Amino acid sequence: MELGPPGGSGPAEPGPRLRGLRGADAAASASSLSRFGAEAGCRASAVAAVLPAGGSGERMGVPTPKQFCPILERPLISYTLQALERVSWIKDIIVAVTRENMETMKGIIQRYQHKRISLVEAGVTRHRSIFNGLKALAEDQPNCRLSKPEVVIIHDAVRPFVEEDVLLKVVTAAQEHGASGAIRPLVSTVISPSADSCLDHSLERARYRASEMPQAFLFDVIYDAYQQCSDYDLEFGTECLHLALKYSHIKAKLVEGSPDLWKVTYKRDLYAAESIIKERISQKVCVVMDTKEDEEHVGHCLEEMLKTELNHVKVTSGQDLQQIILEQCYNFVCVNVMTSDFEETQRLLNMVEESNLSILYPVVVISVHFLDYESVPLGQKMEKVMQIREFAKEAKKRNILLSGLLIYFPQSPVSIYVTVPDWKNGLVEEEEPLQPSA
Amino acid sequence: MELGPPGGSGPAEPGPRLRGLRGADAAASASSLSRFGAEAGCRASAVAAVLPAGGSGERMGVPTPKQFCPILERPLISYTLQALERVSWIKDIIVAVTRENMETMKGIIQRYQHKRISLVEAGVTRHRSIFNGLKALAEDQPNCRLSKPEVVIIHDAVRPFVEEDVLLKVVTAAQEHGASGAIRPLVSTVISPSADSCLDHSLERARYRASEMPQAFLFDVIYDAYQQCSDYDLEFGTECLHLALKYSHIKAKLVEGSPDLWKVTYKRDLYAAESIIKERISQKVCVVMDTKEDEEHVGHCLEEMLKTELNHVKVTSGQDLQQIILEQCYNFVCVNVMTSDFEETQRLLNMVEESNLSILYPVVVISVHFLDYESVPLGQKMEKVMQIREFAKEAKKRNILLSGLLIYFPQSPVSIYVTVPDWKNGLVEEEEPLQPSA
Repeated sequence: MELGPPGGSGPAEPGPRLRGLRGADAAASASSLSRFGAEAGCRASAVAAVLPAGGSGERMGVPTPKQFCPILERPLISYTLQALERVSWIKDIIVAVTRENMETMKGIIQRYQHKRISLVEAGVTRHRSIFNGLKALAEDQPNCRLSKPEVVIIHDAVRPFVEEDVLLKVVTAAQEHGASGAIRPLVSTVISPSADSCLDHSLERARYRASEMPQAFLFDVIYDAYQQCSDYDLEFGTECLHLALKYSHIKAKLVEGSPDLWKVTYKRDLYAAESIIKERISQKVCVVMDTKEDEEHVGHCLEEMLKTELNHVKVTSGQDLQQIILEQCYNFVCVNVMTSDFEETQRLLNMVEESNLSILYPVVVISVHFLDYESVPLGQKMEKVMQIREFAKEAKKRNILLSGLLIYFPQSPVSIYVTVPDWKNGLVEEEEPLQPSA
Repeated sequence: MELGPPGGSGPAEPGPRLRGLRGADAAASASSLSRFGAEAGCRASAVAAVLPAGGSGERMGVPTPKQFCPILERPLISYTLQALERVSWIKDIIVAVTRENMETMKGIIQRYQHKRISLVEAGVTRHRSIFNGLKALAEDQPNCRLSKPEVVIIHDAVRPFVEEDVLLKVVTAAQEHGASGAIRPLVSTVISPSADSCLDHSLERARYRASEMPQAFLFDVIYDAYQQCSDYDLEFGTECLHLALKYSHIKAKLVEGSPDLWKVTYKRDLYAAESIIKERISQKVCVVMDTKEDEEHVGHCLEEMLKTELNHVKVTSGQDLQQIILEQCYNFVCVNVMTSDFEETQRLLNMVEESNLSILYPVVVISVHFLDYESVPLGQKMEKVMQIREFAKEAKKRNILLSGLLIYFPQSPVSIYVTVPDWKNGLVEEEEPLQPSA
């Protein structure tokens, strides 16, 4: 059984399995929600999801279709797939992409190790793409591992922050009512223009809602609707709930969704999504030290300072590094006190690499070194520290952003800045010199 | 005559007047749009704007009302005020704030040197706040410098990116039709729920629009409407266009607005706004050198490299620094080749400070120094360069983010990182060593 993250805080468990995250600890961390989810999945014969991703993204004002726009170098659609595939009771995820993007999509699935994905060709409109996805699930073809689900979720490729919580709610409501969809309050008043672009009337905002995604349907309800619906619906319609009502006479149950369900539509939404993801993966920092001897040690001072400065961030020390990596900490400060080598940093880099942690999100590692300039000639020390440039280049290929920080004492801290991660991790800012006891 | 920026690219001319930006060059840069704006302003007896800013920002999920949330340390409402006050033909801007935020608002106006602003007390609802603003304009009180305008613009404090273009369109349409408002296409389908939270019906998306801001009205049209309207309207209504229709029988002209008109509503919108502002002020980088002698000089190499690396950014060299500052360049790379002093950097800092440039947006200055480690003892050089820490502390108080970069050759570039601006300026990333000819 695969488990979602407890309560949806922090990023989801990535698609590529973190090595070792199977056992008593993982099971114990399962929230009651996840267990209910798993039961819902058992009770239903099967749940599948269809993701239309054939859009051209013209509103974004960029040539790349918005579902393929990169956020922290990973395409938007990969975040959405990750959000769906972490839900263990979704058995199949059908993605509809245009023929010209088929290879791109295959590359994304391979690179980010997405599982349970099947690709179908998108139609020229959203409804036609969804219909193609449903057909793939309906047809009992030989050599096809897909089978008809009881419930199908329809979601957008460009809503990356969908939580298991709301997926479960729409699936459960669909089992009961035949159809269900997430809604949100309207942000703006909706008005109806007349033919000459003047105000005809405005709608009372409180009486209406924005229809969002995900939606869920008993498979037969929505498939029957699509089989009956007109070319006009397929060309100009956008709303699956409307089709279920019109052709299958099912009044969908409406479920209140969270603000995070919003659809990435404009360029500013990419900025917002990037900031949300950065915020999520910056909640924890682990300080790793090559010594545990002295409580008054400079490394401990650094840890205390980080705790004070980054009061919204959980700062832990790396007692059980393996466990901390499994809990998906993406930020490490590696303090090298005993030597000017990189043994500790190298050990950490190896563990991060072996864990698959950096496949979906960048991992930030800051390697800290100390220099008493009176005892060691700076040039000599510096040359050694500069080797970190080479490590950094190699690490970056594996999505690990390694920086070096040289603390030059007893005067003032000077950081030797080797590779700048283009990254707002709030880690490096230092206004006052550390006061090492050594 | 004050002029808006040409075509709305780049940040608006700040409220605090940039010293020296009056003259032939400024006049020559006026777009035809701005001239039309000025004419429209002359033709009308007067245009005023009312900004309701009494909201509590509960949807943001933060304790600060959203109009006071900081973006790059400046409150959101200050950006909106800046956007309005750069339009010379808006004679008065009336802001409605709650009694408890009155002093905060006064502080903002003083700190960011906003002009033409009058404060009134907000009501408990949006409509009551707007009504209070209109009353302040309507009443011919002694000792009051406000006078009744022909046209009044109503805008939201939390829509910071309004352009002169759309303001002019709604004002012109209001002069002709009596009322006008900006609209946008709907992003989501709008549905009507039944009492039991099931779908009653969905609206055909193409037939409706989202009503956005700004809106404009002949003053008498909207003031009469507010004087007649019911307590229910004042308590539960949100749409001024609706009041103009219901009570003054005016069908507002609807004007297509740009995506940038969106309302900052959720926390993610703050992220988006911050990124948009950063993008706007990062479009230009000026390289300032303390030598002009040698075309093959390392400073020129750096400039060429920046041009290649930052191909979306305009890289200029600081021939006429005064002019470049007046054109609102917010990013400077100051190359100190001749000495290890900070003469050039200090001169630049002084000019930036004198110009008022950093009142509204942070100015980034990177002071670059070179070190041939074979000829100068590093410790000695470094201590000197470290003085930049003190400069940086002082500069930061004036919103100038100063960093030092030490290029250590002939081996590899090493940057001595002194104060980290928490700032995505894309400037510092360097993968390959510079090859200085010196």
